[in-house]
Parts: sequence; structure tokens; C-alpha cells
Amino acid sequence: MAPWSLNEVSEHNSAQSCWVVIHNNVYDVTEFLPEHPGGAAIILRYAGGDATEVYDQIHVPDALDKCLPGEKHLGPVQPDAARRLTEERIARKKTKDEVRVEEAHKRKPPLSHILSLAAMEKVASDVLSHKAWSYYSSSSDDTISAFLLVAISPVEIYIPAAYSENARAFSRFFFNARVMRPVGDCDPSTTILGYSSSIPVFVSGAALARLGHPKGEINITRAAAKEGIIQMVSSNASLSKEDIMAAADPTQTLFFQLYKNRDDDKALKRVQEVVGLGYKAIFLTVDAIVAGNREEDIRCPWVLEELESGKPAVWDENAPVEDVNLGGTAGNLVNRDDRNMKWEKTVPWLRSVTTLPIVIKGVQCVADAVAAAEAGVDGILLSNHGGRQLDYSMPPIEVLYRLQRQRPDVFLKLEVYIDGGIYRGTDVVKALCLGAKAVGLGRAFLYAQSAYGEAGAAKVVQLMRREIVTAMQLVGASNVTDLKPEMVERVDWECLPKSKL
Amino acid sequence: MAPWSLNEVSEHNSAQSCWVVIHNNVYDVTEFLPEHPGGAAIILRYAGGDATEVYDQIHVPDALDKCLPGEKHLGPVQPDAARRLTEERIARKKTKDEVRVEEAHKRKPPLSHILSLAAMEKVASDVLSHKAWSYYSSSSDDTISAFLLVAISPVEIYIPAAYSENARAFSRFFFNARVMRPVGDCDPSTTILGYSSSIPVFVSGAALARLGHPKGEINITRAAAKEGIIQMVSSNASLSKEDIMAAADPTQTLFFQLYKNRDDDKALKRVQEVVGLGYKAIFLTVDAIVAGNREEDIRCPWVLEELESGKPAVWDENAPVEDVNLGGTAGNLVNRDDRNMKWEKTVPWLRSVTTLPIVIKGVQCVADAVAAAEAGVDGILLSNHGGRQLDYSMPPIEVLYRLQRQRPDVFLKLEVYIDGGIYRGTDVVKALCLGAKAVGLGRAFLYAQSAYGEAGAAKVVQLMRREIVTAMQLVGASNVTDLKPEMVERVDWECLPKSKL
Amino acid sequence: MAPWSLNEVSEHNSAQSCWVVIHNNVYDVTEFLPEHPGGAAIILRYAGGDATEVYDQIHVPDALDKCLPGEKHLGPVQPDAARRLTEERIARKKTKDEVRVEEAHKRKPPLSHILSLAAMEKVASDVLSHKAWSYYSSSSDDTISAFLLVAISPVEIYIPAAYSENARAFSRFFFNARVMRPVGDCDPSTTILGYSSSIPVFVSGAALARLGHPKGEINITRAAAKEGIIQMVSSNASLSKEDIMAAADPTQTLFFQLYKNRDDDKALKRVQEVVGLGYKAIFLTVDAIVAGNREEDIRCPWVLEELESGKPAVWDENAPVEDVNLGGTAGNLVNRDDRNMKWEKTVPWLRSVTTLPIVIKGVQCVADAVAAAEAGVDGILLSNHGGRQLDYSMPPIEVLYRLQRQRPDVFLKLEVYIDGGIYRGTDVVKALCLGAKAVGLGRAFLYAQSAYGEAGAAKVVQLMRREIVTAMQLVGASNVTDLKPEMVERVDWECLPKSKL
Amino acid sequence: MAPWSLNEVSEHNSAQSCWVVIHNNVYDVTEFLPEHPGGAAIILRYAGGDATEVYDQIHVPDALDKCLPGEKHLGPVQPDAARRLTEERIARKKTKDEVRVEEAHKRKPPLSHILSLAAMEKVASDVLSHKAWSYYSSSSDDTISAFLLVAISPVEIYIPAAYSENARAFSRFFFNARVMRPVGDCDPSTTILGYSSSIPVFVSGAALARLGHPKGEINITRAAAKEGIIQMVSSNASLSKEDIMAAADPTQTLFFQLYKNRDDDKALKRVQEVVGLGYKAIFLTVDAIVAGNREEDIRCPWVLEELESGKPAVWDENAPVEDVNLGGTAGNLVNRDDRNMKWEKTVPWLRSVTTLPIVIKGVQCVADAVAAAEAGVDGILLSNHGGRQLDYSMPPIEVLYRLQRQRPDVFLKLEVYIDGGIYRGTDVVKALCLGAKAVGLGRAFLYAQSAYGEAGAAKVVQLMRREIVTAMQLVGASNVTDLKPEMVERVDWECLPKSKL
Repeated sequence: MAPWSLNEVSEHNSAQSCWVVIHNNVYDVTEFLPEHPGGAAIILRYAGGDATEVYDQIHVPDALDKCLPGEKHLGPVQPDAARRLTEERIARKKTKDEVRVEEAHKRKPPLSHILSLAAMEKVASDVLSHKAWSYYSSSSDDTISAFLLVAISPVEIYIPAAYSENARAFSRFFFNARVMRPVGDCDPSTTILGYSSSIPVFVSGAALARLGHPKGEINITRAAAKEGIIQMVSSNASLSKEDIMAAADPTQTLFFQLYKNRDDDKALKRVQEVVGLGYKAIFLTVDAIVAGNREEDIRCPWVLEELESGKPAVWDENAPVEDVNLGGTAGNLVNRDDRNMKWEKTVPWLRSVTTLPIVIKGVQCVADAVAAAEAGVDGILLSNHGGRQLDYSMPPIEVLYRLQRQRPDVFLKLEVYIDGGIYRGTDVVKALCLGAKAVGLGRAFLYAQSAYGEAGAAKVVQLMRREIVTAMQLVGASNVTDLKPEMVERVDWECLPKSKL
Repeated sequence: MAPWSLNEVSEHNSAQSCWVVIHNNVYDVTEFLPEHPGGAAIILRYAGGDATEVYDQIHVPDALDKCLPGEKHLGPVQPDAARRLTEERIARKKTKDEVRVEEAHKRKPPLSHILSLAAMEKVASDVLSHKAWSYYSSSSDDTISAFLLVAISPVEIYIPAAYSENARAFSRFFFNARVMRPVGDCDPSTTILGYSSSIPVFVSGAALARLGHPKGEINITRAAAKEGIIQMVSSNASLSKEDIMAAADPTQTLFFQLYKNRDDDKALKRVQEVVGLGYKAIFLTVDAIVAGNREEDIRCPWVLEELESGKPAVWDENAPVEDVNLGGTAGNLVNRDDRNMKWEKTVPWLRSVTTLPIVIKGVQCVADAVAAAEAGVDGILLSNHGGRQLDYSMPPIEVLYRLQRQRPDVFLKLEVYIDGGIYRGTDVVKALCLGAKAVGLGRAFLYAQSAYGEAGAAKVVQLMRREIVTAMQLVGASNVTDLKPEMVERVDWECLPKSKL
Repeated sequence: MAPWSLNEVSEHNSAQSCWVVIHNNVYDVTEFLPEHPGGAAIILRYAGGDATEVYDQIHVPDALDKCLPGEKHLGPVQPDAARRLTEERIARKKTKDEVRVEEAHKRKPPLSHILSLAAMEKVASDVLSHKAWSYYSSSSDDTISAFLLVAISPVEIYIPAAYSENARAFSRFFFNARVMRPVGDCDPSTTILGYSSSIPVFVSGAALARLGHPKGEINITRAAAKEGIIQMVSSNASLSKEDIMAAADPTQTLFFQLYKNRDDDKALKRVQEVVGLGYKAIFLTVDAIVAGNREEDIRCPWVLEELESGKPAVWDENAPVEDVNLGGTAGNLVNRDDRNMKWEKTVPWLRSVTTLPIVIKGVQCVADAVAAAEAGVDGILLSNHGGRQLDYSMPPIEVLYRLQRQRPDVFLKLEVYIDGGIYRGTDVVKALCLGAKAVGLGRAFLYAQSAYGEAGAAKVVQLMRREIVTAMQLVGASNVTDLKPEMVERVDWECLPKSKL
Repeated sequence: MAPWSLNEVSEHNSAQSCWVVIHNNVYDVTEFLPEHPGGAAIILRYAGGDATEVYDQIHVPDALDKCLPGEKHLGPVQPDAARRLTEERIARKKTKDEVRVEEAHKRKPPLSHILSLAAMEKVASDVLSHKAWSYYSSSSDDTISAFLLVAISPVEIYIPAAYSENARAFSRFFFNARVMRPVGDCDPSTTILGYSSSIPVFVSGAALARLGHPKGEINITRAAAKEGIIQMVSSNASLSKEDIMAAADPTQTLFFQLYKNRDDDKALKRVQEVVGLGYKAIFLTVDAIVAGNREEDIRCPWVLEELESGKPAVWDENAPVEDVNLGGTAGNLVNRDDRNMKWEKTVPWLRSVTTLPIVIKGVQCVADAVAAAEAGVDGILLSNHGGRQLDYSMPPIEVLYRLQRQRPDVFLKLEVYIDGGIYRGTDVVKALCLGAKAVGLGRAFLYAQSAYGEAGAAKVVQLMRREIVTAMQLVGASNVTDLKPEMVERVDWECLPKSKL
């Protein structure tokens, strides 16, 4: 009975009976293990011991209180144990990476000096922990080892990451700008599924914001309210859908990004909660049924270990084989998702459980855009999951271009959005010319809130607004309906990488 | 009453009553504030104080005397105040950037060793103040932050600047050179709107030449006279249109680049002055109704501050938000321009107020070239404002190529010129083969006069003449009418950036 | 008579009478010289002396005992000679390259940290001797000297190696991925010539595995058995076809890569042996009738000499001209191969001597794929010998793409495989979409067994399996027959080389 | 009267009376000035003084004796003057560049280690004087200043040199190699204008070989004889056409590259001499009627001065303008050539004065190839003068490709050759597949003889022979008539520059 001694706790150190100490209280999480969105393995690593620190990285303080039934709250540890644990947490020497992050935060430039999303990403790359950066920035079949190889081999190996291809693809689209058109009053606002947005940009689902900033997704929610845009909230957010909705302005529009559970009952329950909370649309995610191969994310623990010890790991033929988490961070998140969805089954099921608009997130080719239109959904988000899933997936702006040329009728049947690779107002304007109703930004908001909190997230919208308006005026458009396919031309030359300064 | 004490002057430090001291004389510029081509903000920064130094950077000594009514000349400051101000100006320690510039001027190579426009640009990049270089060289959505990002990120982001694309576009056009044609006497001369030019090159409008050299645009005017080419004078020149015309040779041809004021009466007044002064054509600027996003120019004050202090600015959450001039230098210049021009309104209006030939400067696609022909103007200048406005605007040589293939009839109805990205005589000859009557050079003259004054500007023409004649002879042309579209072929390969030595 | 003095042995130092000492036993190899697969020259270099060391690099200890008739085993050297030779071998100072290799092996990362074939190649490039690396990695018209030139010349010279083009070609193929398809159970297995394979990958013939690891090809054979894939054994393996078959699991499938001798009788004998040993198919090699020009391999002896002495060789006009082995390592291997094969002659001959399935290895264009189908063979391996033979040979994935578009009927008449340039699961999936039945990996297995022995070779298959399954699921395929040509699109842009970190 | 004092000689220091001392003998070259192939200016720089050193760089010792009438040989200088001049020549301190060259020669690798033309060029770049390297390697609109600019500017400027484009163009042609063809006996020989050649390669005209090696063009002549190929001798060779023919083997075939004098009588005289000497064909040069803009060559004197003094030249506003030789070395050579040649005039004139076969050297587009066929000449050499004349001239292999596709009939009417950008046997085989009868190498022979004399020149042929035979065997050809257009495919991807090791 509470208060517990650490000895008593330490006996419950397996999947059969798993207790953990968090902020000096003991919890029995044995039955919760299979439910944990981040997977059982990470909890079991701390079974019978203190899990406060790793818990705080991802979760808000009261998350566990909310999702665990009262009887599993076993009460506090003994006072001297509490004191010892707290002291240990305080006394723990900062890791080299933590020290680096602290120093970087002191050096970051004034927010007013951030003139572009790329500049914001640069700051984020400085101030993020290696773990957060690895998760946020990683993409499919990461190129790190290829880089290293190239440096020593006489042969160059070309293994592009889908992430950078998404961005580069925009550089193949040039404007046929029109002059002598009245653009003195230029209005960049639009609607998405009937909900108004101050600019044709929304927050695309992006997970685990607390890895970058303690307030997490709420930074983005508040900035979206202030700047008048719509946020799509991920099932895998580090805050619960309840907490995020609670932080929202009453008039604010939020959409929900659904990762469908393979168990229809659990999926149904989640949809009902979403509807009940007041989310205005369901974005069903279909491009992440399994985790992509994100090497930088997988490699992260080793890199940190080597950084800390100063010694690289070396091969020992006789050592037991290390168990590597090849699914990476994302693997844990999608473990129980439905891998057997079908147009003719899943869309009708979702229609049958909610009247909210349905958008399919993750369409990657013309054929599936047509299939979506035939399935009668309200919108599609052309996306390859930010290049984090299938390498060599066609860049979304290229899919949009093909759709505009091959099946312009699809745009009459549903709304089309894209995300992936957008860095500039010109990118947004190109997408709108080619028929997109709006574009999503994911990483940009994660990076900005990591670096500057809510003000950073708001800055993303402000930068985009100014660049979008300037680009609209300079192509001769005074509102979004003035943007036409003929204003954009896909050129046959390549934009080359710049030399470094 | 004059002479004034500095205390008295210092009380007039707001938009309500704004006095400034320039070369020890006091001026009341309150009513002039909204008229200032460079914007009110820059004046207000010096309201109630001494503005001599910043005034001298842009204006000739008697500029203010001319444009301010006599009653606003309030007379001198008191003798000891005058002495003190003069001493302060002299005693002011040179900034690190000023010292750098002085040293660079001592090291620059003999003018005879400058063999190409690129070499001239290299010298200019050395000897220009950071402020001048930032303004002259900046282009839309500058790539500086992208560069920095690339250096640290595993992902390359491709954000080409329109400026470099303009130049690179020429590298996709190769010659089908003809041999066995008599070219012993090769004449590169032509006419522009009926006025003769020794080579098919003119000075395209480029602003603020005094940033680079105290004599400013007059360096270019005199070089143009000597070398027999035509200068198009910008509304935003640092010298007045009167001063420039006064410096011209009586037989010299000058054109005027008009930025139309949104107030038709003011625009009319300016046109009438231009006509009265003897300018021979109006180039109506339509590609700069709002300022492009020129990051390097915006960033310039911070860069200088950091250079001087040796300390980068850092984020302070509690500091008041800094007011950033996001319009940059150009923003001030175009603030009051007409953003609601229309083919069917603006061209007839201009026709109604002058009989001078009208050229539309800033056409960026075939459709607008056709619109211009239908509007009955005398010429079009295919230009994206040197890549300083809309990023991913189609490079002018590409627009020319499309016009030649899709609507060759337009060349029969008006004269077509291009500017942007021209570095070599071969570039000029390619443009002429594709139907251009002449090409404009802007930055090249700014750079050259900054580095070597009038002799530098003349050198630009001499280099071009020699390269043009050589290229004409080697493609088999003895005069400009021998240059034909079939002599140029757009190839499907890319010219790659060279490695650095 | 044995035991022999070293003096006696040393008299037999020519092609007329050639004795060598190996592990202190004397052999008369005079009659064996023309039979030596590695050529007579290398043996003659050691004629009359001790050849133990170079012998051990390539051959297993009992190789000579097996292939030399008993009467040529002349018996041991005298005891004191044996002692002296052994001492000399032990006392021999390690070369700088040997020391480097030893150190590199101590530093190599844990096998569990190897996440890609590129990372494996990186380790191999560290731990391989220069000789092995030069032979394994070299490709046609190696670019080494071109690199050097580029570094000093104002002119860049572009001489791509076929090897890197093979890999880069894959980067022009992007996916049109399908979503909403049930892929929860994804099975990557297939059959090759009717024999089952756990993934659509086989070991393509690659020679001289002992250069990288003392166990040589057996590492690969055992890994193939364990992982359930098929190995194609090269005529030029460093182990005999008998030894490799002996090491195989009884249920394991092995194919044989035949280099046909120009003497039909010898070729017949080899085929009969192959059939007798239980190999299941003949891959007739037609892309290596002469050796390609592999400069890095040719240069290897000089590089090692310079490394050892610390002094580069310099030109001496009066020195006798050095005899350079321009054929390199491969030259010796193909010296006696048939250079006059013909479709109408060679295929019927092979059919007449065996009932095994026949695959032509080395088809490089559509026309020859059609010729093969007409000749009635069972399969073709589209291959340019890993880019080691003809520079600018069309990359195999491009040949496959052309075949799919121009002559899809060929896929109905025989099985099509490709090898060359494959690094990722996505590469394999692209090839299968375009009609390939399976793909071969050659160097990947050589590199992996060199670095980590049998475990390394198995790791190659494990990495491929995971990447293939992930890619299949993300394109919407639950087994290999779901992969269709329309899932792959050849794009018109280039994937650029990455910058180095 | 001789012997002359130096004072007497020094009075004849102008174009009116110009004496020079060479090897201590006095010559009156006043009347010879306008005849000097290298121009009068270079002689006048030494008028009245000792010109021995500069004379020796270009000319063989007895050149002047031969071309100057006896009465202009004024006899020796006085003995003490002779002694003093000789001592001065000996005592003259070596320049830094001369010292560098001497050291480089000591370090060059054995000729047997040279495995490619690129490696040979690398050695030449080390051992050549800066003057020779600048002349040999320079190309039109050299990119040197562009390089420098790129290093400092945020904007990249793309100014490719025609020279490197010539080479890079080959990388767009890939093979459709055929297998299963009997190539055991592969014969690379061919005929050119009916004269046999051991390989389909000839020496293309290249001037001033003595800049690189004292024996000059004779190195090449002797190597050509030994290796059985044909040499085309330039009008601008540093040895006379008489000397070169005298060094030739009696059975050796030499062609003559004619730069036609604008004075038809002088041109006629030269042709008659050529015919009389036994040259077998006239290659009329039409791609160099004026000198291209070769910046590196122009810049050479300044670079050497700066190297010697250690101080860069700087701008002095008051200094007299330096007279720059903008024609460079080539300018002097083509000064008196005919710039008004015409198909309908020049070809008939040449036919009227000789029965030798006529080849037009310098055709750069399909239209002129057709014009040549209509003019009835015997051959055309597709050439842009090694990229030294018009920048962005279409690369010769691209012209050949267009000719093969657009006007295959032309190949039936005359022989077609190409030069420019050839580095490999595969390049030669590609050209032959596309219809060329043979290819010319120019710089390759200059570089090789500079580095290794006659043996170097022979090595070029040996390298080419081996690479050509290997490539022919690997594409499935046993003689040159087996090479067909369908064996080569122009691909739509770019070959990228390699990273530096």
C-alpha cells in the first residue's frame, strides 16, 4: 500500500505487472500497455522505475491522470524515496545535446529578422534536440549513409529523398505573369470545405509538437486562431484532441486527421469523440499504413550515445545482436492502424458513422484522385506524407499538374489540396493556379513553434500572407479566383542547387 | 529666426513639424514628407537633427534647394552649432564597411584588364558599400537564407532567384553558325524607335546610381554620348531628370522610364515635364507596381549593425517588436505608383497626353505581348525587372523565344526589346536572331560606373561592341538584318554551373 | 628428389619448366600454365620461388591439390628451407595497406547499425585492401584521371562511368503509388525459372570473393541458403564450383554463370560438370568477351608501390618501357573465352549439350532481347556487367523500360531479369513493375561478405526484404503480381547529386 | 658594315627601319614585317635589339635564314657584343614560371602510367609554360572571370565555354550494344579520302607546337608515320610546311590546313607550294576568319607579370591607357586571312588552282553541310575550332547527329569528319556510328608532344587504338562498316560533373 518503497515498485518490472513512477506517484500501467499510442516497448524500458523524464518529453502533466482509471493510480512513493528521485532528476548531468540546445536558444536571432520559412527552419535546426530534429526532418530512405559513401568512393550514388524532391518540383513551374491588371486591392482569403480562411493555407497534420516545445500543438492552435487559418489536428499529436479543442477559440475551425484503427469499434469510438468535440471535418490518412524507412530517426539513439560517450560503437562479433527499432518513432504510432482499407469499404463505413465532410489525405496519383471522386468524398489532399513514406513517390505538385491536364473534371467534384515541399508564397500561388483550393504546411509550423512558440507559428502565417499577396499582385490577380492554369507553365529545365556561400 | 540653435531645431522632430539640417542650413520639410520619392520614414528618422550624411549618399548638393519652395529654406544654424556639426561629421569614425570600401578601391585592377561584364561585376562587388551592393544585386526572394539552411540540413532546398535564371536561360540557346559569308565589313549599328544606336544595346532604367558613385547617372549619360548609344532614364534616378538632360550632349537621345503615379494629375505633370525636357520616348513601367521581396536589401541594416558591433542580434522575448522595413529600398520608391493600370485605360490616357512613342516595359508573357500590340503601343520591353520582382517569372529570352514561335506577327506591329541576364555579346546576338530590335543593360552600367566612373560605363559599351561584332562575324552576319531565327536553336540540355577554381 | 633445396627449385623459373613452392611443398605447374584461370603471367612472376602468399589470397588451401595431377606434386622442400620460408613469411613486414586494413576492421560499426546497402559499401571501402577495392569497385573507363584533371583545369571534362549511370538511371523512375488497397499481408516471394525465392532478388555472378574474405563465395552460399534466395555462381569464383556446391544446403538452388571457352570441347566438359554437380540453370555470359578498360584496377600495383615507398614513380626517358597489364585482373579471367559466339550457333550448341534452362546474361538493347526470344532461350539478364565493360552502355533499367514499351510481347516468351545499380528496395520494386521477374545483386554481396562474412551477406537480404515489403505496401501491392507498369512513370527531370555533409 | 656594334643596330628600331639580332647575327626585317605570320607588333617590340629568346620559342634555328633574302642577312655583331649578348642570355635569371616548368618535368609520371588522354592533359597542364597552356587550352569567352565572380556573388552566372560543351555533348550519346556477334578479329582501320589509316583518327590542325616542345610539329609527324595515321598540317604550324614534309616518311600521307590569304595571289602561291611538296588534300579553314575572344590567352602577359613581381596590377586613373592585345595569340595569326569567302566564289577558285581533294574545315550546322555538298567538295570537317571561336557554337557531335537524322543523303556525297571534345575510344565509335568517316584530335597531340615528345604523340594513337578496338568489340563490330546509327541513342538525361576526389 502507498506510500511505496522503491523496492516494492521495482518488482513490477515486466509486461505481466508493469508499474512506473511519474512525478513521484506510482501507476499500474499493465493493462494500458497495448493501448499506449507510442507502443509498449518504450514503457517497458522503465518498468519498475522512474519514467518522469521521458514522460514529460511527450506528454502534458495530467495526460496519464486522464487516460488511466482511478484504481490504477496507486499513490505516492515514500517521502524519502520521493526526495531521492527528485534529487536524482535535478542532479542528473545535462547531456551534451541538452547543453547544445540551451546555448543555441541563447543565440537565436530576433523573430523580426526571420524573413522566410527557410530561415525559420535554419533556426529550428539549431535549437531542436537531436531527437526532435531527427524525427521532424527525417524522410524516406534517408540519404545520410549515401552522403558518407559519396565522400570516399570514386562512384557517386544518387539516392534522392522524396522530401527534397517535393520542394524541388516547384522549381519546374514558372509564371506567365500578366501585367496591366488592377491589383491595388488584393484579397488572398478563401474557403476550405465552406469554412473561411484568411489565406489559402492550412496547418497540415504533424505529430509530436511537444518534442520541440513544452506547449506543443497549442502554440499552433492559438496562432491559427489569431491569424485566421484552419488547423488539421493529428491523431498523433502530443496533446489530446480534447486538450487542443479546449485551447481553441470558440469560433475557430479545426479539422481532424484520422489514423483509422484496424479495429472498427475503436475507430468508431474515436470518430464519435471527434464529432462530439466539434471538429469540422475528417481527413482520413491513407499514405501511412506502415511506417516509412526513416534512417535518421532510426539512427538517433546511436548518434546521441556516440555524442555523449565520444566513442563510436564498433563491431564485436561475439556480442549479442542489438535489437534495433527499425520502425523508428513513426513505427510505434501506426502499429495498430488499418492496413486493409479499400475505397469500396472504408469510405462507406466512414460515411455511415459521421455526417462530417470526408477528405482523403495521401492521394499520390491521378488514378486515385479519380477513385476518390467516384467514392464521393468531399476532398482530397495530394500528399506523400512530406516525403516521409515512399521514396520516389511522385511530388504532389506534379500530381496536381497531371490531374489538371488529364482529368480537369475532378476539380468540379471535390476540393483538391496539396502539401509537401512548400516554402514560398510563389509555391502557394502556383498550386492555386493549377487548381488547388488550399495548401497545407506541416513541418513549417513544427519548426516555428519549436523555435519561438506561439509567436513563431503566427510568423509563418504572416510571412506566407505577405509573400502570397505580393505574388498574386505580380501575376495580375486581385483574388484567388483570378489564378488560372495558363498563368503557370511547366518548364523543361532544371533548377540547380545553389553553391554554398 | 535664423541663425537657429540646435535646441530650436530639435523641437521640430515629428511629422507634424519636421525640420532637418543639411550642410548647416535648416529646412522645413513637413509638407514635403508625402512627396519624398524615398518615403517619409527615412526623413523622419532625422527629424529635428542633422541629415547631411544620408542626404549626400543619394542626392546632389542642390537637389533640395530646387525642389523646396524658398520659404521653407529657414536659414543657417548658429555659427558655433555649424562648427560643432561640421566637426562631428569630420570626426565621425569611419564604419568598418567604409574602411573596407576604401581599401578595395586601392586594390582594383586597371580598367584595361577588365575583359568582360562579369569581371566588371566582380570589381563592383568589391568596391561597393554593402548597402549599394545589397540594393543593386538583390533579387526576388533572395536565396541567402536558403544558402545558410542548405549548409546544415540533410535536405537541399532549391529556391532559385529569378535573377540568375535570366542569365542561365541564355545558355539553352546555341548557334547554327553559317560560314563562307562575307563579313569583312561588319556593322553592328541599328535604330531604336527611329533613333540611331552604334550597337543594338541601350541603357535600361536603373535607379540610385549615386549609391555607387558621387556623380551618379551622369557617368552613364556622358558615356552613352561618347559611345553613341541611348539611355533610358529612370523616374527613380538619384539625379533629377532635369540634371541628367542638362548633362547630355545636345544631339544625344534619351528615353524616359515612367513609374506612373496613382494620381493622374501628378502623372500628367511628370509626362509634360519629360516631353518639355526633350526625352524622346516613354517607357511605361508595369512590372513593379509593388516592390518584390528582396531579402538581401531588407536585411542590409542588420548586417551592417552586426558588422560594426561584431555581435549578432539575438532574440529577446520581452523586447518590443522591431519595426522592419519589408519593402526595402524599392518599397519606398514605388509606394505611390498606380496599381490599377489597365490596357484599355492606361494606354489611351498616355496617348492622350503625349505624342511621344510609348513602350511598355515589363511584359512577361506572350499573351501580354499580343495585348500590347492590340493596344497599339510602339514597343515592348520584355523584362521581369532584372529578376527583382516576381520569382519564377519566365526569363525574358524564353518569352522572346515563345513569342517568335507562337506569334511572329507581333514583331511586325511593334519593336521588341529585352533586358535581364545579358552578360556577353553572344547573348545580344541570340536575342537579335530571335527578333529583338535591341537589348537593355541595367546593372552592368551601375556596376561599371560605381567601379570606374564614366570610363567604366564607356568600357561596358566597348566590351559589348567588340563581342557583338566578333559573334556576328562568326555566325555569318555583316549587319543586324542578317541575324535570323534559324541561326539560334533552343537545345534540350542544361549548362551546368562551373566548379570554382 | 624431394626434399628439395631452394637452389634446385630456383632453376625451374620459366615457362619451359615452372616450379613453385606453396606452403613448403613444391609443384610443377609447367603444363598447368595455359590452364590457369588467372593467366600464366601471374604464376611466372613466382616461378622458381615461394608463391604461398599470393596463392592464399585467391585460392583455398587444397585447390592446387585438386586440380593438379598427383605426379606434379613434387614433395616438400628441405626442412631448413621450409623453416626459412615460413620465417620469412612471418617476418615479412606488413605493408602500409595491410596495416590500414587491420585498423579499419577494428573500427567498423556493429552490423545492426548498417541500415542500407550504401552504408555496407562504405564499410567495405574502409576494410578492403586496395587491391580488392580496385577490382570490385572499378568500372569501365574509370574516371580517376578525369577527376584529377578537373581539379586543375579551367575546363571540366565529363566522363561518366557506366557504373554510376546504372544507379542514377533508377532516379528517373517515380511511383504512381496506389492507396486504399489491402496490403496487411504482403508476400514478396516469387519464383525464378520455377525455383522459389523468398524475395525477388538473386545473387548475380561476381568473381574473386576471397580477395575480400578468406571464406570467399561460401559466405554468400550459406547466407543464401539461410535467407531463401538463389545464388548464381561465377566461372571465375575464387572457389571451385565443386567446393561451392559442397557447401550448399541439399535443398538450395544454385545457378551457374558460364564463361564459354573458345574451345568447344573444354566448354562442353565444363557444362557437363556443372550439370553433374546439380546446378539448376546456365547463365551464358555474353557481355564480357573481352575485358573492359578498368583504369583503377590497372593502376592498382603502382598505387600500392607508391603508398609503400612514399615516392611517386617518375618518367625516366632512358629506362626500359614498363610492361603494363592493361587487361587488369579481368583480362586474365576472360583470355580464353569465346569471342565469336553467335545467336544461331551458340544457343543451339548449348541446347544440344544440356537440358538445363538457358539464360543469356548481358543483353543490352531491345534488339538483342528480341533475338534471344527468337533463339528460344528461357530467360535474359539485362546487364552491362555492372558497368565494368562498355562505358555508355545503356543502363539496364532503361533497357527494361524500352523493352516494356516497345516489345511487351517478349515478357511472355521468356523471363527477364536485370542487374546493375540497385541499392534500394524501391529499385527492385520499380524493376518488377516494369516487367522484371527478379533482380540480381553482385557487388553488394561481395562488399557485405568482405566486411562481415556470412552475417554480412545475410544482412543484404534482410535489408532488401524489409525495404521491398515496405515499398510494396506503400505502392499498394500485396504480392509481386500486383506490381504493374502503370505504377512507375519515367520522369523528365534529373535527380541531382547531393552535397556532402 | 658588319660586324655591327650594338649602337648601330639600336638605331634601326622602328617600322621604317627594323633590325633585330638573332643568335648574334643582324637581320633587316623591315620589308618582312607585313609578311610575318605572327604579326609585325611582336617583332617591333624587339626592333634594334636582341630577339633571340622569343624567336627560339616559336621558330627552328634556320627559319629566318630560309624565308629572308640573302641581302637582308647583314652579318654578325662585333665579337665583344656577341660575347655580351650571349652572357646576358645565359645570365638571365629564370622566371618563376620557367622554374616551375623545370620542376614539373622532373616529377612527371612514366609514360607507361598514362592510361587516358585526360591523364596526358593533366601532365601537360603541369609541364607547360603558362604562355603555352594559355594558348593551347583557352577557348572562346573564357570563363575565368566568371569563376571568380561566382565565388563572391550570391548569384551564379552560367557561362559555359564551347570547349567543354564539345566534350560534354558526347555524354548524351549512349550505346545500344549488340552481343553474340563474332568480334574475335576486330580491325579498326579505315581510309580517309582514299588514303589508309590504321585507326579512324587523324591529327587535326593545331598551331605552334614549339611552344610546348623544341622539336614542335615534327614530334607529331614522326609519331603519325610510326603509328600509321594521317596528319593535317596547319598553316600556322611553328615549323614550315617544307620542314614538316622533309621530316615525313616517304610513304606517309600529310594533308594541309589552309588559312586562305585575302590576297588571292598569295593564296594561290601557297596552294602551289603545298601541291608541290606532296600534301595530299587541302582542308580550307572557314571557322576562324577572325580570332575568337580567348580571355585566358589575352590575360597571359599580366598573369606572368604578376607572378614574377608578386604584385597584382592596380588601377591608376592618371596612368596612360595600356594597349591590350585583345586578339591574343590567334589574332596575329589570322590577321590577313580572307573574311569574305563565299561558297559560290571560293570553292570554284580553289578547284581552279588544284586538283587535290578539297575539304571544308569548320562546318557548324546542317545547312552548311548541305551547301558544301552542293558546292561539290570532297569532304567536310564538322568543327567549331575546338570551341576556341564562337561560344555556344553547336557541338560537332550534335551537328553530326542532326545531319544523320535530317539529311542522311549528304553522307553519300562527301566524307564527313568531326573534331572537338574527343577524349575516349567510345567517343570515336559514337561518331563513326553516326556516319563520320574519321575524327580529328588536335590539342591531344599538342599536349602529348609537349609532355613526352614524339613518344607522347605516339602514345595518343596507342591509347586510342586500344580503346577503339575494345569499344568496337563490345558494341559488336568487327570492322568500321559494322558501326550503324541504330547502335547509338541520344538520351534525354544529362551526365553530371563528377565530384572531386
